[in-house]
Amino acid sequence: MYGVILAGGSGTRFWPVSREQSPKQLQKFVGSGTMIQNTVQRLLPLVPIEKMYVGTHHQQALETLRQLDSFEFSSDHLLAEPCSRNTAVAIGVMAKIIADKDADAVMAVFPADHVVANSENFIKVLQKAKSLALKDFLVTLGIPPTRPETGFGYLKQGTEINSFKESYHVEQFVEKPDISTAKKYLELGAYFWNCGVFVWKAATLLEELQKHAPDIHSQLTTLTGCLQKSSGKLAHLEMNEKGCEIFSSLPSLSIDYAVMEKSSKVALVPANIGWSDVGSWNALDDVCEKDSSGNILTGNVLARDCNNSIVHGQNRLVAILGLNDTVVVDTQDALLVCAKDKSQDVKKIVESLNEKGHSEGKLHATVKKPWGSYTVLDSGPDFLLKRIEVLSGEALSLQSHQHRSEHWTVASGSAKVDRDEETFNLKVNESITIPKNARHRLSNPGSELLILFEIQFGNLLDENDIMRHEDRYGRC
Amino acid sequence: MYGVILAGGSGTRFWPVSREQSPKQLQKFVGSGTMIQNTVQRLLPLVPIEKMYVGTHHQQALETLRQLDSFEFSSDHLLAEPCSRNTAVAIGVMAKIIADKDADAVMAVFPADHVVANSENFIKVLQKAKSLALKDFLVTLGIPPTRPETGFGYLKQGTEINSFKESYHVEQFVEKPDISTAKKYLELGAYFWNCGVFVWKAATLLEELQKHAPDIHSQLTTLTGCLQKSSGKLAHLEMNEKGCEIFSSLPSLSIDYAVMEKSSKVALVPANIGWSDVGSWNALDDVCEKDSSGNILTGNVLARDCNNSIVHGQNRLVAILGLNDTVVVDTQDALLVCAKDKSQDVKKIVESLNEKGHSEGKLHATVKKPWGSYTVLDSGPDFLLKRIEVLSGEALSLQSHQHRSEHWTVASGSAKVDRDEETFNLKVNESITIPKNARHRLSNPGSELLILFEIQFGNLLDENDIMRHEDRYGRC
Repeated sequence: MYGVILAGGSGTRFWPVSREQSPKQLQKFVGSGTMIQNTVQRLLPLVPIEKMYVGTHHQQALETLRQLDSFEFSSDHLLAEPCSRNTAVAIGVMAKIIADKDADAVMAVFPADHVVANSENFIKVLQKAKSLALKDFLVTLGIPPTRPETGFGYLKQGTEINSFKESYHVEQFVEKPDISTAKKYLELGAYFWNCGVFVWKAATLLEELQKHAPDIHSQLTTLTGCLQKSSGKLAHLEMNEKGCEIFSSLPSLSIDYAVMEKSSKVALVPANIGWSDVGSWNALDDVCEKDSSGNILTGNVLARDCNNSIVHGQNRLVAILGLNDTVVVDTQDALLVCAKDKSQDVKKIVESLNEKGHSEGKLHATVKKPWGSYTVLDSGPDFLLKRIEVLSGEALSLQSHQHRSEHWTVASGSAKVDRDEETFNLKVNESITIPKNARHRLSNPGSELLILFEIQFGNLLDENDIMRHEDRYGRC
Repeated sequence: MYGVILAGGSGTRFWPVSREQSPKQLQKFVGSGTMIQNTVQRLLPLVPIEKMYVGTHHQQALETLRQLDSFEFSSDHLLAEPCSRNTAVAIGVMAKIIADKDADAVMAVFPADHVVANSENFIKVLQKAKSLALKDFLVTLGIPPTRPETGFGYLKQGTEINSFKESYHVEQFVEKPDISTAKKYLELGAYFWNCGVFVWKAATLLEELQKHAPDIHSQLTTLTGCLQKSSGKLAHLEMNEKGCEIFSSLPSLSIDYAVMEKSSKVALVPANIGWSDVGSWNALDDVCEKDSSGNILTGNVLARDCNNSIVHGQNRLVAILGLNDTVVVDTQDALLVCAKDKSQDVKKIVESLNEKGHSEGKLHATVKKPWGSYTVLDSGPDFLLKRIEVLSGEALSLQSHQHRSEHWTVASGSAKVDRDEETFNLKVNESITIPKNARHRLSNPGSELLILFEIQFGNLLDENDIMRHEDRYGRC
C-alpha cells in the first residue's frame, strides 16, 4: 500500500506555538515526535517508507524533510505545492504520480496533524479498507462520534456492502451541523465523523476525478510533466514555472466536495481508533496524560492550586496559581493566556495580529531559513544582535548590505566566510567583521551545527537590506 | 520638617516583577515614577529634598540612589543597613542623626512603597500632625477602613486631645484581627488602619526609645559614630565593621512594638488620603485606572473577551482571551498567571522557588551590579552570551578568570579596556578578546551608557570564576 500524507494547513488555532511558517504538523504536542513524525510512525507497519509521499506548502518543504530524515524518507517523494489549493488538486497529482509508477497501486491518504490513540485498530481498519479499495471502492473512514460535535462534517451510513462485514455504502455526506442536529446524530448512531482518511486504488480515484472534476483531471498529466527536482541537498519535487501557473489556476476544492460527495463508489468503514483532529488547545485534554488535578503541564512549570489547566511552556519558568480551565502557552516572543472554552477563538487573535501587521501572528522569534535559522536576541537604535544557526553543509547566499556592517563570532562549530576576494576559516572564539557593501557568504563546512552571533551596526537594520548575488536555494 | 523614608522590604508578593534584588519600592506600578520616586515627589511640598533621609538594605543602596538622582537627593542622606532589623533600629539611628544636626527637628517617617491618591489631604494631615508633634506627641496616621481587612493592625481611637480638633489619644493598638472582628471594627467606626506613617520630634522619639527600648537606645550614639561614607560616586552612609556587628546584634523590632504600643504620648490623626499599601497584585484594582471592561493592561497586550483582569507585561506580546479576574505578569525569565483572589499566595510561589534553589525567586534575568547590570541572553554547553551595561563613569573590578576567555564587542557608547599591560579604547563595532588568566578591567569613560556584548568561551562558565584584584566598590 502507498501512503500519501497531506501536510498543508496553517494551524492558526495552535498559535503561538504554531505559526504560518511552522504549522501544527511540525510541532510536538503528544507522543514522542512531532505530529507528522507520529503520523509516519503509525503507518510504517502497513506502508513502507519508500512508498510514502508527502504534500506540503513549499515554505515548509525543507523543515518537513528534516523532520522525516530519521525515517530515511526519500526527499523526492515530497511534493512542494506552490500555493494552497485545498486537497483535491494535491491528491490528484500524487495519485497520478503513483498510478504512473504502479498501475494497480492502492493508496491511502492521511492528514499529517491528527492523533490516533489506538494504532493497532487503525492498521486493522486500513487493511479492511484496502480489500474494499481493491474492489474499486473509494473508502472513507468514519469515526463513531463521542460528543455532539459541530465542528466536523458527518457521514450517514447506508446499507452494508455485500460480502464485506461492517462496511457500508454512504447514504449522505452531511455538512457541519448545528448543535441540536449534532445531538440527534449522536443519538441515532448511524452517523460518523468524516476524518479525512481515504483508501482507494490510484486508478479508481483518477477515473472518478475525471468523471466529477474534469477541469482538475484534465491538467494532471501536464502537471506531473512540470515536476522537477529542486536544487540543494534535500532535493524534492517542485513545479516549474508553467506548473505553478496551472496549479494556482485550478479550483481550490476539497476531495470530499470534488469527488466523494458525488461518486457512487464511496464506501464507509467505521473506525474505532481513538481519533482526534486536535483542533484547538483544549483538544489536548482528549489526547494527553494529565496529573491528579487534571492539568497537562509541559515545560518548566510550577503549579499551585490549579485544576484542569494546560500549560505549554519552553525554557522560561511559568508559575500558575489558583487557575481552573485555563490554557497558558509560552513562547519566546508571544504569550497566550486563554479560557479553555474560548480556545476555538485563538484564530481570531491571529487574525487580529495579522490585521495590525504584527509579525508574531506569522513568524516565530526563530525564523527558519533553507540553510538553518536565525533569532533576534537583542536590539537598540543602531544595533541588532542575532543568533545564527547554519546546518551542516549548508550556506547562506552570497550577499551584500547597503546600510549595515556586521560583526560575526563563532560560538559553536566552524564557519567558512567568503568576503570579497578573501576566504576565512573560523573556529570557536574567532571573529570577523563584514563592512558595508562587501560581498560575503557564510557557510558551514563542518559536520556539526554552526552557531554564530551576528551583531549588525547601522541606522537602517532591515531584513530587506540584502542584495543576493548567488544562492543555492534559488532565492536570487 | 525632616522626612525619613523606609525602603526596606523584599516585596515577594509582587513577584516576578519584584525580587530580592529589586523589591517593590524600586518598581513602577502606578503614576509617573517608581514607588519610591512617587513617595519623594508626594512629600516635596512639605519636606525639602535636603531634609529627606532614606534607609534601605545595602544591596539596594545604589539603585535607590540612582532612582533619586533626578530629585538631587544627597547620596549621604542614604543609610545602607547591613542587614534587615525591622523599623525600630533604623528609625532610631536616623532620629539620632537628625537630632544631632537639629535639636528641635520634627521628623516624619514614611514607607517607600505605599500609594496615596489624595496628596493634598495628605499634606494637610501631615501639617496637623506636625503641630501635635511640636507638643511632644508621637503622632500616627490612622486610615479610616473601607473594608473588613484582616491584613493590617488597627488603632482604637481614644478621647479627643485638648485644643486639637479631630486628633485623638490612642486607646489601643490592635493586632491583625480575624474577619468577624474586622467586620465589627468597620461597623463601630472608631478603629483605624495603622499605615506606618509617623510624625514626631526626633528628640521625643529618642526619649521614648530610651524609656521603652533601652537596649536599642543605648547603642545609638555608638552606631552613629560607626557611620562612614562609602567609596565611589554615589557615596552614602554605611556602617563600619564594628557598626555592622552592633546593628546585627540588636533586636529586630517594629517601631510600633518597641515604642508606640507602650508610650503614653501617642496621638492619632485620622487620614482620609486615599491610602493603599498595594500589598499584592490584586491591590492594583484600588489604585490603577481600568478600561471599560475593568481590565488594567500594561505592556504589549492584546485582550479579547476579558474582564477585571490585570496584565503587567514588558516588550513581549501578551494575548489574553476569555479571562476573568486573572492576573498575568510577564518578565524576561519568569511568568506568573494567577487567579486574582489568590494573589496573596504569590509569596508561597517564591518560597517554593527558593526552597528548590531556583534563582528566579531572588534574581532577575538582568542582574544589577554597582557598575550597571548584565543579562544572560543565550548559552550553550561551551559558550554564554551576555549583554553588559556599564553606567557612565563606572568600571568593573580589575579581574581575571581561570576557566574562560571572553570576546567583547561594543554595541553602543564607548569602552576603555585594560588588559594586562595594555589599554584599549573601543568604539561601536570594535572588539577585543580577553584570554584566560589575563588581568582585565572594563570601564565606561564616556557620558553615555556603554552597551557591550560579551561571549564567554570555556567548559566552566560560572559567576564564581572571578578573581578580583582591585575594585572601587570594595568587593575584593
